[in-house]
Amino acid sequence: MLHFDTDYMAGAHPEVLKRLVDTNHLQTVGYGSDEYTKHAAELIKTACGKPDARVYFLTGGTQTNATVIDGILAKHQGVLAAESGHISVHEAGAIEASGHKILTLPQHEGKVWASELKEYIDNFYSDDTYEHMVAPGMLYISYPTEYGTIYSYDELKEISDICHNADIPLYIDGARLAYGLAAENNSVTLKDIADLCDVFYIGGTKVGALFGEAVVITNPALLHHFFPLIKQHGALLAKGRLLGVQFEALFESNLYEEIGIQVVNKALRIRDLFLSKGFKTVVNSPTNQQFIYLPNDIIDRLAKHVSFELWGPRGKEYTTVRFVTGWTTTESEIDLLESILNTL
Amino acid sequence: MLHFDTDYMAGAHPEVLKRLVDTNHLQTVGYGSDEYTKHAAELIKTACGKPDARVYFLTGGTQTNATVIDGILAKHQGVLAAESGHISVHEAGAIEASGHKILTLPQHEGKVWASELKEYIDNFYSDDTYEHMVAPGMLYISYPTEYGTIYSYDELKEISDICHNADIPLYIDGARLAYGLAAENNSVTLKDIADLCDVFYIGGTKVGALFGEAVVITNPALLHHFFPLIKQHGALLAKGRLLGVQFEALFESNLYEEIGIQVVNKALRIRDLFLSKGFKTVVNSPTNQQFIYLPNDIIDRLAKHVSFELWGPRGKEYTTVRFVTGWTTTESEIDLLESILNTL
Amino acid sequence: MLHFDTDYMAGAHPEVLKRLVDTNHLQTVGYGSDEYTKHAAELIKTACGKPDARVYFLTGGTQTNATVIDGILAKHQGVLAAESGHISVHEAGAIEASGHKILTLPQHEGKVWASELKEYIDNFYSDDTYEHMVAPGMLYISYPTEYGTIYSYDELKEISDICHNADIPLYIDGARLAYGLAAENNSVTLKDIADLCDVFYIGGTKVGALFGEAVVITNPALLHHFFPLIKQHGALLAKGRLLGVQFEALFESNLYEEIGIQVVNKALRIRDLFLSKGFKTVVNSPTNQQFIYLPNDIIDRLAKHVSFELWGPRGKEYTTVRFVTGWTTTESEIDLLESILNTL
Amino acid sequence: MLHFDTDYMAGAHPEVLKRLVDTNHLQTVGYGSDEYTKHAAELIKTACGKPDARVYFLTGGTQTNATVIDGILAKHQGVLAAESGHISVHEAGAIEASGHKILTLPQHEGKVWASELKEYIDNFYSDDTYEHMVAPGMLYISYPTEYGTIYSYDELKEISDICHNADIPLYIDGARLAYGLAAENNSVTLKDIADLCDVFYIGGTKVGALFGEAVVITNPALLHHFFPLIKQHGALLAKGRLLGVQFEALFESNLYEEIGIQVVNKALRIRDLFLSKGFKTVVNSPTNQQFIYLPNDIIDRLAKHVSFELWGPRGKEYTTVRFVTGWTTTESEIDLLESILNTL
Repeated sequence: MLHFDTDYMAGAHPEVLKRLVDTNHLQTVGYGSDEYTKHAAELIKTACGKPDARVYFLTGGTQTNATVIDGILAKHQGVLAAESGHISVHEAGAIEASGHKILTLPQHEGKVWASELKEYIDNFYSDDTYEHMVAPGMLYISYPTEYGTIYSYDELKEISDICHNADIPLYIDGARLAYGLAAENNSVTLKDIADLCDVFYIGGTKVGALFGEAVVITNPALLHHFFPLIKQHGALLAKGRLLGVQFEALFESNLYEEIGIQVVNKALRIRDLFLSKGFKTVVNSPTNQQFIYLPNDIIDRLAKHVSFELWGPRGKEYTTVRFVTGWTTTESEIDLLESILNTL
Repeated sequence: MLHFDTDYMAGAHPEVLKRLVDTNHLQTVGYGSDEYTKHAAELIKTACGKPDARVYFLTGGTQTNATVIDGILAKHQGVLAAESGHISVHEAGAIEASGHKILTLPQHEGKVWASELKEYIDNFYSDDTYEHMVAPGMLYISYPTEYGTIYSYDELKEISDICHNADIPLYIDGARLAYGLAAENNSVTLKDIADLCDVFYIGGTKVGALFGEAVVITNPALLHHFFPLIKQHGALLAKGRLLGVQFEALFESNLYEEIGIQVVNKALRIRDLFLSKGFKTVVNSPTNQQFIYLPNDIIDRLAKHVSFELWGPRGKEYTTVRFVTGWTTTESEIDLLESILNTL
Repeated sequence: MLHFDTDYMAGAHPEVLKRLVDTNHLQTVGYGSDEYTKHAAELIKTACGKPDARVYFLTGGTQTNATVIDGILAKHQGVLAAESGHISVHEAGAIEASGHKILTLPQHEGKVWASELKEYIDNFYSDDTYEHMVAPGMLYISYPTEYGTIYSYDELKEISDICHNADIPLYIDGARLAYGLAAENNSVTLKDIADLCDVFYIGGTKVGALFGEAVVITNPALLHHFFPLIKQHGALLAKGRLLGVQFEALFESNLYEEIGIQVVNKALRIRDLFLSKGFKTVVNSPTNQQFIYLPNDIIDRLAKHVSFELWGPRGKEYTTVRFVTGWTTTESEIDLLESILNTL
Repeated sequence: MLHFDTDYMAGAHPEVLKRLVDTNHLQTVGYGSDEYTKHAAELIKTACGKPDARVYFLTGGTQTNATVIDGILAKHQGVLAAESGHISVHEAGAIEASGHKILTLPQHEGKVWASELKEYIDNFYSDDTYEHMVAPGMLYISYPTEYGTIYSYDELKEISDICHNADIPLYIDGARLAYGLAAENNSVTLKDIADLCDVFYIGGTKVGALFGEAVVITNPALLHHFFPLIKQHGALLAKGRLLGVQFEALFESNLYEEIGIQVVNKALRIRDLFLSKGFKTVVNSPTNQQFIYLPNDIIDRLAKHVSFELWGPRGKEYTTVRFVTGWTTTESEIDLLESILNTL
């Protein structure tokens, strides 16, 4: 069986795993005060061009989003997000559980439009009853989005400017950041991300780590007392150095970047394969998630050899499916997918 | 200056006030354990045809909604509501502050459609990832809605049936319930409300009380331990009998119903006045809130003599305004409004 | 039956009630934006000697405490309070419901000791694991305390200095503030209170109002965006001017002060009455709550003519009882109590 | 340098690590739906003698406590715990952040006394104002406690009976459960734990896993909908099988038990070493944490060769220190500690 369900089906990239094994017996202090974690933080700050940033490591995306957002918002504020944003849909109410409303903006292939963001903020403060409403206290976007799409540099810059003019911090969920940076026709660098937003996280779980997300705080005014908040959110790993060790492996060489490139290239090959057979993509994704619109009988026949996810409910004749590549995906697996498709 | 801004601009209806004055010097135990409160609860249960209902009195609408909803929902659940629902928009995030997401449904003149409610619930449980999403744990609707509209008996019955088939309690926000029951062409009685929903509240603040909302719990499985929750939400009035005394005044005779009829009739007269002048209503409201679409120059000239609210941002040429009647509104005030309109 | 159960058994002081009746028919904007409320705020600022303070009116003590404390604390902080503090015991978890821990200090007749406060703060920051613990973010004290006791000026000054040296706001719960200011041997003025703390509230419910508490914010750095937080906590009264009107009545003349003096004097007479009969007070309270240690048979015989509260569980032979005076208490009621006591 | 700071300084036990390495490349579905996790759950149910228990795996202790407690408590309830309980002190307010008060009981060498528990519950319901207070909704105890002590079978049985008579679920924090089961003179088995409580967790992080805690729910009435709550608390690991794989390694053979025995034996040897030198233990701990009362000059000379934690503030002449053993501790390290002690 070929697996294209998602990018967190296997363990760690061999180079990451090797580091964990090599350091396994060493004894260090807990909770991220060890030298591995400090070194990993330095590597990330350098990669971001932000020597004064603060870097913290958490274990998963939902907990990272909940902790960061809870830490930034004042009690009367909510977080702006696309209605398709991960926090809006698939985090089981983690943001609301910490007391905050998600203020949804329309989504366009997963993206927020700068114009609609500006309109929301302007309308809010021009409403006489705004003090009875939840004030927008920050913006959450994902890069790449839940649909695999990316923002251009100009789009991101415009959004960033609107946020900062309105004194609204911009937070980027980078669960799959490597795949955004490696995307076809991408114009945004890691340093751009670090420049344009106030806080973001570099996803490890979906990019070669066993688990782990690195929060990078570039705006010095935000998230003081983040450590106790991580603890309060149950997001503080006792053996914190496990996170440091893994991010060292990802950032000491160019491993994080390389995984991004290899994984995206394989996804684009899959996309082209489907397009060449006359099928259509639902969204024009340049990253490692591909959404294909397939006839149900093709889906059923494919499913005998290949695992993948239906995206939304099954249609009468056609259904959208998602193909995702990860660091384990090989060219020969795609060759095999191609042969299977040829037989259908 | 004539005031049509809202229905909570004056104090209490004279009969309600008289009771407060007459009982002012009496000494009773606090927190609603007094005889006035017990009697008021009995009167309400009788009016609802629900001898086994439990009745609690709180002071305001937002706190009532927050306390009831927090009390009903399990930790992993959210509350379904129209996107225009008061809890969705104008309660400053009170629901989310208690840890729960508001799951919004489209609104149609303020109303939820049964078909869309059913579709939401069906889609939720047919989604493979539903355990990563917030489960619908109850439905909130307002009667009348924030746009002054009402549900017909059949509409309410269909919604109620869908809820109960899905094991989702139905909660009705009756901040202006008297005006819904007195609405033009209304087919729903207080007993119907009590029959069709699991919990609702009878609004006093906007119907002749100084303040006060009566929560009626008809589903015996819900809201055990509601008293400590009222206290926890800061919604427990020390001199609780003030609420009992007022609701006694409203329900011992037909005062609550009568206020409803008189106030709605005056609003309909205002509506007809505007229609007769060739203006249009934005929503076909049969209750005490009327939304009229007026040219800006008419608005400006009216505003010299009459106070009312703009509904949403001022348009380029036309703007929606809201006219509301209350227990203080007199026929002569409407006569005066008519003469002013005649001069414009 | 004579009532000495508590100080919120009757309605409003006649002068307060008269104002409510006189203004009942007037129409004003809601939510405290009216002229009565503004005027009441001015009167209070003047009485406090704090022209730049901000004043807000809420309806009850628990909701006031919850809203103020939630508004001051950062997410990783808790509130220091005596273990006997109202927020620690009798608010049904309202503080925790907003996400914050109460960090308890020992109580001495209801009071916090400056030395123990300082020790707590010092120990906290000298503990290596302090970032895993809840940081003290403010101090809550009540004046007078739940046992009717008061702080001397010097005690309050010392506590205030410790707080401010540690950058910890001091908040005073003044539910019965009038009775503290009128206490026997009191050395603290309203202006002292306003000087020494950062936020406090002037209780109305127990001092002649139907309901209402006035929050006075003297530290300009605190509680920005307090209005939406009041709304979020369900503590915003629609007919907000009812609060303004009542506090106008209490502060336009010296009514608030006078009620305090009269009520305390009657309580002291009750205390002296019991002492003259050879009974003992449990706490040396100079305010309107008196805690007397009585033989159970005296209690049972008294209870046929007088209502009062047992304070804690009934003992084998002796039990602590509480006698409270309020604005309705008359000298002739105490004469009657005296005759009853004489017969026992 | 010898390390006796804590039991989470190294990575995973070699047998656990080997499993992670061996399964690293396999692809499985996420979030714990894989076969490894199912198998691990079966092994644990068998070990507990509870075929009908439900087992869930989370990554750390604080998040496990917060998720379980939040899931069990109703909104108006709090959790009883020793004042020294981990949730009371060292979880940065995680329980309160989910809206619940911790109701503290006195601690006796870290343990709760059955008599005081019973007294608390009895007093609560005999207090007339109990509905204004936070109701005890469950009991949290740790086994072994934060001081390394254990409950005897009889003590645990008595506590369990009191809880169940009062309809209060009993939850046991087993972060170091293996060391309690292996304790000197222990009379409690894993099956006893499973029998006597309603929910408990088997700690992996401190007993040979990289991370991971197994929640065992033996009371079928509790924690329905636990999966979405895990997600909501940010405690759901994407690569969930990592937890299953590790607990398979711990429970397929007797590894969990063996680690417990070996680690405790080494701690007892350390204890005896100090006792033989004439030093005193502060608490009579039969598990892997030893609290020794040492002269400051001994501490300073030891600290040149050995790392360990001061327990509380440094005293004038003597200070309490903690020595902890873990799966990495060897006999030769203790030999070395002995030689160092001999030279002091």
